[in-house]
Amino acid sequence: MRPKMYLFGDSITEESFSNGGWGASLASCFSRSVDVVLRGYSGYNTRWALKVADKVFPAEGGATVLAVTVFFGANDASLPDRYSAFQHVPLPEYKQNLHAIVSFLKQRCPNAVILLITPPPVDEEGRLRDPYMDNAMGLPERTNEAAGAYAKECISVAQAYGCPVIDLWTKIQQLPDWQNSCLRDGLHLTESGSRVVFEEVVMKLKERGLSLETLPADLPLLADIDPNDPLKAFHN
Amino acid sequence: MRPKMYLFGDSITEESFSNGGWGASLASCFSRSVDVVLRGYSGYNTRWALKVADKVFPAEGGATVLAVTVFFGANDASLPDRYSAFQHVPLPEYKQNLHAIVSFLKQRCPNAVILLITPPPVDEEGRLRDPYMDNAMGLPERTNEAAGAYAKECISVAQAYGCPVIDLWTKIQQLPDWQNSCLRDGLHLTESGSRVVFEEVVMKLKERGLSLETLPADLPLLADIDPNDPLKAFHN
Repeated sequence: MRPKMYLFGDSITEESFSNGGWGASLASCFSRSVDVVLRGYSGYNTRWALKVADKVFPAEGGATVLAVTVFFGANDASLPDRYSAFQHVPLPEYKQNLHAIVSFLKQRCPNAVILLITPPPVDEEGRLRDPYMDNAMGLPERTNEAAGAYAKECISVAQAYGCPVIDLWTKIQQLPDWQNSCLRDGLHLTESGSRVVFEEVVMKLKERGLSLETLPADLPLLADIDPNDPLKAFHN
Repeated sequence: MRPKMYLFGDSITEESFSNGGWGASLASCFSRSVDVVLRGYSGYNTRWALKVADKVFPAEGGATVLAVTVFFGANDASLPDRYSAFQHVPLPEYKQNLHAIVSFLKQRCPNAVILLITPPPVDEEGRLRDPYMDNAMGLPERTNEAAGAYAKECISVAQAYGCPVIDLWTKIQQLPDWQNSCLRDGLHLTESGSRVVFEEVVMKLKERGLSLETLPADLPLLADIDPNDPLKAFHN
């Protein structure tokens, strides 16, 4: 009955329902009109995403999907000679994979706005402080420059398909002290960083006609229930 | 592909994906194994919930529902001679409606754990401070005593069906300064109050065999991906 919005991505998507997360904020925002479906896979790059896309997006029901956020690249951009090398995907393949993902989604979810999100910037010092990383070499496994190159390709894929795109790499770097205000460990988002993603997603969807104003609530809102005859609202 | 958990209730459910909300916490907790589906309807009582249940829970797909939280009573317990009288449902009808809802869910979602949650306690002073309430009479439209009576009936319905139940009315009143620590406006939950609901839901589901340990992730977890041969994990 209720249309869906899928969030397809890596850990930055998977953890988007934690406190102040952008996924939870979207679910809260559209609480009466759209189901926000969490499909975040920690550590995944576009190569692995392509392997699972067919399972993530079921063959049936695709017509009820209003929007899909595609948010990969942070892992693809891991440097090929550092700690996270096994997650690295070369830039040309990243571009090709992203093409294939968008192309697949356009077929599988023909009515959906496909919204691409670039990887966020990387704060290399922040990465070295990540307690879960075993950076024995004392060198970050990701660099901001590499992330930027993947962000650029992401934008070019979006443009090729006429899809909206959030240039998160640039957007976040425009904010004061973004290394600490927007990033928790040099890569993952703080509540403030998540707020940027939430606001950008809401804005981009609105530009494509999807907003609280245009998406109907599926059942009567309290404001539409007549206190003198409440059941009237439920007679349809 | 992924099983579902429905959250069916009133505003305390509808707003459960706001910052630190119990719904978002559940979605975050089960981010790789269960879809948490938000079906909260602000202002609704059990009478209205019954009118919409058939639309809220589609006839198809009920078998994939693992759990449903049923969280009504806060509006039913509105006093019949005060500001929110139009939301009031007499206690015997509340009980009857709750019976009908559980009975319906047992048919519609035959594999689901139906988890009842009593209304929270009411802080009457807090209600009078609610800026959205037009308590011209200077009297709260809900009392804690009334909420307690509805909580008691909720527990008895759960017992009649052998369903788990969270006695939130009692649970919250055991906490220090619950009026302010757990309630925002004498009725709706703060982050701490929401934390209580989240932890109780997780515990009750675990008692029925539904937990992170028993619910499989639908796709390979990063820890299960061999860095020396990542694609192996995706060959099944």
